Amino acid sequence: MAGEFAFIEALRARVRTGALVPLGIGDDGAVLAPPAGEELVVCCDTMVAGVHFPLDTPPADVGYKLAAVNLSDLAAMGATPRWCTLALTLPSLDPGYVEPLLTGLLALADAHGMALVGGDTTRGPLTLTLNAFGSLPAGTALRRDGARAGDAVYVSGTLGDAAAALALRGQRIDPNDGEGKLARTRLQQRLARPTPRVALGQALRGLAHACIDVSDGLAADLGHICRQSGLAAVIEADALPASRALLPLVTDAARRLRLQLGGDDYELCFTLPSEREPALAAVAAAAHTTLTRIGTLGPGEGVHLIDAEGRVVAPPAAGWDHFG
Amino acid sequence: MAGEFAFIEALRARVRTGALVPLGIGDDGAVLAPPAGEELVVCCDTMVAGVHFPLDTPPADVGYKLAAVNLSDLAAMGATPRWCTLALTLPSLDPGYVEPLLTGLLALADAHGMALVGGDTTRGPLTLTLNAFGSLPAGTALRRDGARAGDAVYVSGTLGDAAAALALRGQRIDPNDGEGKLARTRLQQRLARPTPRVALGQALRGLAHACIDVSDGLAADLGHICRQSGLAAVIEADALPASRALLPLVTDAARRLRLQLGGDDYELCFTLPSEREPALAAVAAAAHTTLTRIGTLGPGEGVHLIDAEGRVVAPPAAGWDHFG
Repeated sequence: MAGEFAFIEALRARVRTGALVPLGIGDDGAVLAPPAGEELVVCCDTMVAGVHFPLDTPPADVGYKLAAVNLSDLAAMGATPRWCTLALTLPSLDPGYVEPLLTGLLALADAHGMALVGGDTTRGPLTLTLNAFGSLPAGTALRRDGARAGDAVYVSGTLGDAAAALALRGQRIDPNDGEGKLARTRLQQRLARPTPRVALGQALRGLAHACIDVSDGLAADLGHICRQSGLAAVIEADALPASRALLPLVTDAARRLRLQLGGDDYELCFTLPSEREPALAAVAAAAHTTLTRIGTLGPGEGVHLIDAEGRVVAPPAAGWDHFG
Repeated sequence: MAGEFAFIEALRARVRTGALVPLGIGDDGAVLAPPAGEELVVCCDTMVAGVHFPLDTPPADVGYKLAAVNLSDLAAMGATPRWCTLALTLPSLDPGYVEPLLTGLLALADAHGMALVGGDTTRGPLTLTLNAFGSLPAGTALRRDGARAGDAVYVSGTLGDAAAALALRGQRIDPNDGEGKLARTRLQQRLARPTPRVALGQALRGLAHACIDVSDGLAADLGHICRQSGLAAVIEADALPASRALLPLVTDAARRLRLQLGGDDYELCFTLPSEREPALAAVAAAAHTTLTRIGTLGPGEGVHLIDAEGRVVAPPAAGWDHFG
């Protein structure tokens, strides 16, 4: 009874639950009390070692990112995080790996009031699946298919840091370039520990027509909104926001654009009618992020990038297709 | 965009949802409408190729069993199945594997009104995680910690078929022994496609004090009820029910007992006070299964097997510990 059962007992002791969890870890299932009158939102994301993260990634970062990508999905739906389950497949129950992994995961889950209520622990190649559950008032979920012609297209924060961190990985750093080192550390942090825009998603309920998180890349993700809403997007390449870390490191505009379309940013991309744009200043302040208008939706299909003169600058990059 | 996105579109087309699913597959998350006044039950089970099933298992059986083991957990809680998410990690999106897998899974899910509402598809070693969601009136969940001293202990159906199928695997069959072949086919069916006792679980709400499904083996699973309720169980070895397929194939009583404690049966083991036992006849008839009284709970700890003379016949078998 050593391994798994002892692990579950130890996990149960360190997990915070609350009034919405009548029964947590340690039975055939968890019992959850959804807030009265609310609908549930369920998101599910898997991370496979060697596919979604290098094998030598610190386990605390793996756990943090697993929570972050699922919270980002809840954010894109406008949901308030409530609960999650963790399916953990591991070669062995090595505490030196599992402990920091849980610490990273629970740090972000706790910060967003998302209680770990159950899961499964199995032996096998390192694979992690989190199911994240949120709730929201009935009928208020932010969908991909709700955009309308004439909507303005916005994105939160900045784009390209995560892709830049990946692209710069392994490149030598000039030991005398202190500023460059600091910028790279910031990019790496964006890749390893992305910030899910949870407060922003909730603030966009009743304001945005459609919303998605930028995981596969802006063109691919906004492409889902366009296809599911039956519209085309025209995006101004020069309007895409870049961070103060990225700008000095990647001065070539075409190369920076490729990185900004690269994905893994976990920013929110959303659309709303022009008359609601004035409301966004307060939303941005409350959600502690910038919001940038990057384009417009109209009839047609696809995502079209244009330059300042209105010329198409690049074909939309294909999204990250796990089996492409 | 071929692989994953096309797969998700095709999956969306073949899945049945309903009024409790305002938004199913194809967004950042699914939106679910829980029945008013009900609590939710969430179960999570992972199956890893080469660990939980041989690599050459027919994919339809893999899908069926994944649904069955999760429905069995919902049954053990007394919940009505509602929704599920599927996290599918695969070396490649081979339709020859994925199609029958989904057919097997959806056949059982549909039969129990459990709608597939989302999930994730990733590349990697074959690993499947299902999260199954059910609901029940608030406060009626069947827990492991609710048993009381004096409770009778019951088990549904029969025990040992799945363990016997595993033990007999690879053994030669006398080609002239038609009855023996038929019996083995029945055992194999119990292992490959177990029957989750969903109707029984719901019927036991308000009747049973505690309930668990027999997945790791009777001694281990009943041991959870004993530990979490602070009690001991005395089980009569001769009372453990065996199927008509198992009895003639395994005539040695000690060997049969070992198989009956072997697990993977997905029957329900539950406890209730003696005065409620008369109600069980109608429950058994409605749930289309037999219910057998196998012992009693009292003060103390552990699961104790005794023979007809009251002597301890075997130490309780250790449960299946994935990292033992």
